[in-house]
Amino acid sequence: MVHEVASIPGDGIGPEVIDAVQPVFDDVSERFGFHLELVRYDWGSERYLESGSMMPDDGLDELAGYDAILLGAVGHPDVPDHVTLNNLLLPIRKGFDQAICKRPAILFDGVESPLEGYNGGDIDFVVYRENTEGEYADMGGQEHPGHGHEVAVQSAVFTRTGTERIVRAAFEAATEREGRVTSITKSNAQAHSMVFWDQIVEDVSAEYPDVTVERLLVDAASMDFIRRPEEFDIVVASNLFGDILTDIGAIITGSMGLAPSANINVSGEYPSMFEPVHGSAPDIVGDGVANPLATILSAAMLFDHLGETEAGDAVWSAVTDQLADSDAPRTPDLGGSAATAQVVADLRTRL
Amino acid sequence: MVHEVASIPGDGIGPEVIDAVQPVFDDVSERFGFHLELVRYDWGSERYLESGSMMPDDGLDELAGYDAILLGAVGHPDVPDHVTLNNLLLPIRKGFDQAICKRPAILFDGVESPLEGYNGGDIDFVVYRENTEGEYADMGGQEHPGHGHEVAVQSAVFTRTGTERIVRAAFEAATEREGRVTSITKSNAQAHSMVFWDQIVEDVSAEYPDVTVERLLVDAASMDFIRRPEEFDIVVASNLFGDILTDIGAIITGSMGLAPSANINVSGEYPSMFEPVHGSAPDIVGDGVANPLATILSAAMLFDHLGETEAGDAVWSAVTDQLADSDAPRTPDLGGSAATAQVVADLRTRL
Ligand SMILES: CC(C)[C@H](C(=O)O)[C@@H](O)C(=O)O
Ligand SMILES: CC(C)[C@H](C(=O)O)[C@@H](O)C(=O)O
Repeated sequence: MVHEVASIPGDGIGPEVIDAVQPVFDDVSERFGFHLELVRYDWGSERYLESGSMMPDDGLDELAGYDAILLGAVGHPDVPDHVTLNNLLLPIRKGFDQAICKRPAILFDGVESPLEGYNGGDIDFVVYRENTEGEYADMGGQEHPGHGHEVAVQSAVFTRTGTERIVRAAFEAATEREGRVTSITKSNAQAHSMVFWDQIVEDVSAEYPDVTVERLLVDAASMDFIRRPEEFDIVVASNLFGDILTDIGAIITGSMGLAPSANINVSGEYPSMFEPVHGSAPDIVGDGVANPLATILSAAMLFDHLGETEAGDAVWSAVTDQLADSDAPRTPDLGGSAATAQVVADLRTRL
Repeated sequence: MVHEVASIPGDGIGPEVIDAVQPVFDDVSERFGFHLELVRYDWGSERYLESGSMMPDDGLDELAGYDAILLGAVGHPDVPDHVTLNNLLLPIRKGFDQAICKRPAILFDGVESPLEGYNGGDIDFVVYRENTEGEYADMGGQEHPGHGHEVAVQSAVFTRTGTERIVRAAFEAATEREGRVTSITKSNAQAHSMVFWDQIVEDVSAEYPDVTVERLLVDAASMDFIRRPEEFDIVVASNLFGDILTDIGAIITGSMGLAPSANINVSGEYPSMFEPVHGSAPDIVGDGVANPLATILSAAMLFDHLGETEAGDAVWSAVTDQLADSDAPRTPDLGGSAATAQVVADLRTRL
């Protein structure tokens, strides 16, 4: 079996964490008897600064034939954020109709939470984030620019198709877990969009009588992720709310350096993309201390997606093992002083 | 000096916390030699369930003549949130052009944070939240309702006037504190609105050369409120981002029961409104254990606003004293078992 995966290391620590997973890929593909070809694309902000574009015009066509995409990070101090994102990351998510963004928030054994009284194993939920529309719609504009009475409009767009598929994915996932879905809204202040979202949650929930549903306002949810994170199972949220909540999910489970994510194209028509939740971390670029585990866990999700579930499980277990071992090397974000390479070398002994 | 204040106890624990402040009002007005008339309006969800409206049609006219408004809480299990809010709370904020929502986040001495390693005094920042437009604009709608290919649009609206006044208020406040403003955006994904916001922050910051400015994406900020809350001074944010961040601010400083807020009409043409950040807490209604301190601190902000700064300081100090005293009564949200009335009685001895 041959799998072709495009890798886009991107900006900042992106290349460091992507380089770190190559040996892990080699190990598991050998052990589980498949061939994994990782083809690298040096797209990103450096390219933009040289040539004026983050990727070639036909970038998406180039990627379309792959079985999956592995992305490092995007974001550069010298390039405005709306340029870096709107010209690489968001076009891939939207262009390849990667509607389901799946982000587990797990407090692993051996990892410290900033929340008092929480220990490894206490937090374990998954956020299903809508990934192609909502508050990230590229819709809006500015009137009277430069005249002192400007008005800017940014429109969030929710379609039945877009909303239903993320909600259904969440309910489906809940049937495989504890059967609980928390739907995040802001229906009190955003009645045009969020009452529609609530309606779809109600419609879909009728198909899943064994799944219990909780509705939570996004402000209350942000609080409850801090106050009672142990109570969540599957959380379903819009693009923006999912963005905010998954960052909170990452930090309460010990480190942005541990949070993986999958951007899934449901139809299978296009490749899905796997990426760590963390950004390009310009402050530690080149120090060789970036935590590779979020990318490695993302790779585990990628293996699962390719049907190589044994490989996925093996990688996931190796990371779990390593974190639980207090003698294992850790990067500074986890309170250790190890280098990226040491963490990878140790991990290979556990595969 | 006579001050006329309208009180709207509202729903759930609203009446319990509003009743609790009456004796505090009596004490300080006597001590500082002013007369405070508190006129009560029983508007809210009970009224809605009986008569179909949260307040009379001419409700705003009725309130317009007061020097200030004190609000308890709005929200009821039997009334949809978009009804309760869009028919009482939000019309007051918008109708009275209460553009500046000021919400301190202070970890008081003697109060425990859910964040490991944080002690009283470690957290002290103020969020300036835009309060009349942005993502709370009542703009949008739904197309094809009921036909299975629905689309819902919710438009966020940012005007130069609305954005400039909240940003300017934040910079002004920073000059009275540590001179640091953190501006919250999501410019990478919402370029139509947030790049405009960034531009205004840049314009206004030019007028305040001594204030340093940090720009932070809302997802990163949500994380940083957990990771490094001690580093913030003044935080300025849009309506929605401010909503989310102030709930996080409340929970990391120990309890929603301690977070006050002021909704300020800058021109002075209309009354400003003071309210606790917490909601109606239907789960504890009638138990007599609601924490009155968020409302009492809101009242302190109200006194300041009326020019009764000595009264405001006295109330604020009394609360600070009480919280620092480990023998003082505490409500269950703070880990104690005292009733609302006991907390108020104790507080009066400290005034
Ligand atoms: C970089 C940014 C556009 C992105 C997002 O908001 O989706 C990131 O925060 C994420 O969560 O993947
Ligand atoms: C009740 C709700 C409309 C309100 C808001 O979102 O503004 C509340 O959460 C708040 O923060 O005051």
